[in-house]
Amino acid sequence: MTPLHQLSAAQALQRLRDGSLKCEDYAQALLARIKYRDPTIRAWVYLNEDQILTQARHLDTIPPSERRPLHGLPIGIKDVILTRDMPTQYNSPLYETNVPINMDAAPVLTLRASGALIFGKTSTTEFATAKAGNIHQNLTANPHDPRRTPGGSSSGSGAAVADYHVPIALGTQTGGSVVRPASFNGCYGLKVSWGAVSREGLAQWSTTNDTCGFFTRSVEDLDVVADVFRLEDDVEVPSQPFSLEGAKVALCKSPVWQKAGPGTIAAMDKASQILRSHGAAVMDLELPEDFAHVLDWHSAILGGEGQSSFLGQYLQDKDKMHDSIQALVENKSGNTRKQQLEAYDSCARLRPIWDSIASRFDAVITPSVVDEAPLGLERTGDMSFCSTWTVMQCPALNIPGFVGENGMPIGLTLVGPRYSDRRLLWVAKTIGSIFEENGGFRSKVVA
Amino acid sequence: MTPLHQLSAAQALQRLRDGSLKCEDYAQALLARIKYRDPTIRAWVYLNEDQILTQARHLDTIPPSERRPLHGLPIGIKDVILTRDMPTQYNSPLYETNVPINMDAAPVLTLRASGALIFGKTSTTEFATAKAGNIHQNLTANPHDPRRTPGGSSSGSGAAVADYHVPIALGTQTGGSVVRPASFNGCYGLKVSWGAVSREGLAQWSTTNDTCGFFTRSVEDLDVVADVFRLEDDVEVPSQPFSLEGAKVALCKSPVWQKAGPGTIAAMDKASQILRSHGAAVMDLELPEDFAHVLDWHSAILGGEGQSSFLGQYLQDKDKMHDSIQALVENKSGNTRKQQLEAYDSCARLRPIWDSIASRFDAVITPSVVDEAPLGLERTGDMSFCSTWTVMQCPALNIPGFVGENGMPIGLTLVGPRYSDRRLLWVAKTIGSIFEENGGFRSKVVA
Repeated sequence: MTPLHQLSAAQALQRLRDGSLKCEDYAQALLARIKYRDPTIRAWVYLNEDQILTQARHLDTIPPSERRPLHGLPIGIKDVILTRDMPTQYNSPLYETNVPINMDAAPVLTLRASGALIFGKTSTTEFATAKAGNIHQNLTANPHDPRRTPGGSSSGSGAAVADYHVPIALGTQTGGSVVRPASFNGCYGLKVSWGAVSREGLAQWSTTNDTCGFFTRSVEDLDVVADVFRLEDDVEVPSQPFSLEGAKVALCKSPVWQKAGPGTIAAMDKASQILRSHGAAVMDLELPEDFAHVLDWHSAILGGEGQSSFLGQYLQDKDKMHDSIQALVENKSGNTRKQQLEAYDSCARLRPIWDSIASRFDAVITPSVVDEAPLGLERTGDMSFCSTWTVMQCPALNIPGFVGENGMPIGLTLVGPRYSDRRLLWVAKTIGSIFEENGGFRSKVVA
Repeated sequence: MTPLHQLSAAQALQRLRDGSLKCEDYAQALLARIKYRDPTIRAWVYLNEDQILTQARHLDTIPPSERRPLHGLPIGIKDVILTRDMPTQYNSPLYETNVPINMDAAPVLTLRASGALIFGKTSTTEFATAKAGNIHQNLTANPHDPRRTPGGSSSGSGAAVADYHVPIALGTQTGGSVVRPASFNGCYGLKVSWGAVSREGLAQWSTTNDTCGFFTRSVEDLDVVADVFRLEDDVEVPSQPFSLEGAKVALCKSPVWQKAGPGTIAAMDKASQILRSHGAAVMDLELPEDFAHVLDWHSAILGGEGQSSFLGQYLQDKDKMHDSIQALVENKSGNTRKQQLEAYDSCARLRPIWDSIASRFDAVITPSVVDEAPLGLERTGDMSFCSTWTVMQCPALNIPGFVGENGMPIGLTLVGPRYSDRRLLWVAKTIGSIFEENGGFRSKVVA
């Protein structure tokens, strides 16, 4: 029998709802897993056993007929997302005391109202920015090799799901903070279409880019999340599974392909072979020339929006902020508003172009990361391969399955037009199982 | 001598900083004013005298050399903006208990770190949406005629400033929630460029539109705010005052001019005369045809984004939400994602066009409202004249001075290209004083 901590969300929910698995027993099993593993992984920055078990016991008293869609399902929350019964510290010394409380961020409200067991807070880089490591909190390790980073900024959420601490965790992405840790940890990571999930109560860096995301170990579990958040495309997805036979699949090496390391190059090649061998018509997708500027525009937007986003904390006590965040407020890189506006308008012009390109294919696959997770925990990696899709505001989903030169996981990203989130999941269910089976990665997570 | 409650922020600050006015005495004077007037106006939903005076006394102990830019300045906060020491209730029965606390919204953090005395929470419509009246809280009255609405959704902030309760108040605008109450109450109301002030900790309805705004009784006081929030255009404004002599001023009746009532029609005519008589070259500005669709696009965006923004509260207990907000979550108006995306892309295409049109003039003036504040407190008015500028993400500033058929204030809006906030204030200083002097409005606020 599958150990409880290895159940998928969908499997666990079936048993939690019909009462054959008690919330308390499931929570206990996950807590035991965390006790065993987290001294090495350090995915959690707040975890209160008593609080979890009290909630779990309360959930167990709800009669099966009144149980909600996520009844008793433990979910980890990135520590830049407000929770009404747990501190939120943003990995910032500014929030060591006087931590916000009594307020659920909108997505947490949705999860809690759907019966979820909000389990604890997972580690993040400082204010979910890219450059700062985990200064205030302990540095999180990759479950497949604790000498390597799990990626960031949603470091703990990615590691906790991959390491079987919880079946689902919430993250946020402004550059590549969901897709990258999903790739590094070998799990699924969905950044939804911009606006498809409310951002109220999430740390703000760049309103144009900040997006909620979800980590799971299967596409089925992302469907569970998507149902609860009522993600809906205009066109309902077919009930039969997506078939690769004759499907038009584009491989998009993206404008930063020159950055790709051997692991990602091999993964793209292998993906191509696998897809062809399953009957897909695989073609290379070269983006229009303008896409070469997208990373610069993304960066101009992050700079401009970061100036105002972090001003309040800066004025409170700038010495308690990482230099790179102080530099944003002080506009050290000398961004002009003109550059910011040109970046807004240029990206806005490309979004419908991207939608129309993506709509010509049944699937578009692109790299998630430069390569497998590097050694060292201080730096959480490069967001270059993810930023384009973030600022295009389209859904992006890391699919695991491939393997780097050191045996670490490598994923590829499935992208689609804006608000095609459900279609993306439908396609990913087929492609994901094929990649997982044939991509060559074998988990090194201690069972 | 001017009674303390009538001081502008700039006047008060000078005395608070040099110590010739104690924070406690100033706070006491404003509290006395509120005690006298608020039983009629009902601008405040949370006001704790002890808490205010404790803060004020603490501020008085800070030596003049260490006083910060807003030292001791009382500021009202719209009750959809988080404050770490006061409840935030969104005028929603969902937040009668378990109110968020211990967290300052980003703009409150900036104000507090700049020495401001966060005074209390001002009334709002439910979640700052347009249609719902003040169900949970008492209905706020217009200081010039308590039988009339002060506008909304920033009802209390507009009324409190106009009625001399505080010199500055914070609001938010998604349609016309800053500019409209400013017009109805006869004060200044600045909706800044989208992104110029962080929205973290503000209620979310429409990420594309939600923007922070400020109410004051003078442009000088908006400069005080703009300094603290580090609003900066690319080009610094000249040090000499803006002169109307030879200035190119456009009057933009906007695509909804057919909605304008007699008060607004008269105000636009009078503005034209006044500007001409001060030497301005006044011309009519007709917007390109596409702008006729902007209100539909604004509405499609509000519909699409409202679906996800209010989902959490809806799932918590939809019966505690106004029907119009339930209808947003349920997408009762049947918006498609295609419509939402077309609205995004069309508005995005028009933004640089608007910037370039506006840049051809020294000033662009457009109506703020349909007419003076209507009778009745249930409906807070029509946002048609404001929504275009909200979704263009440009700065929009209500300038008071004109008068309706019933002697109520009417303002006009000064608009400019995105990120021209400081230039707008520079121009408004000149135009504002001329409009206030010659527009015909005489305050009916009980001194």
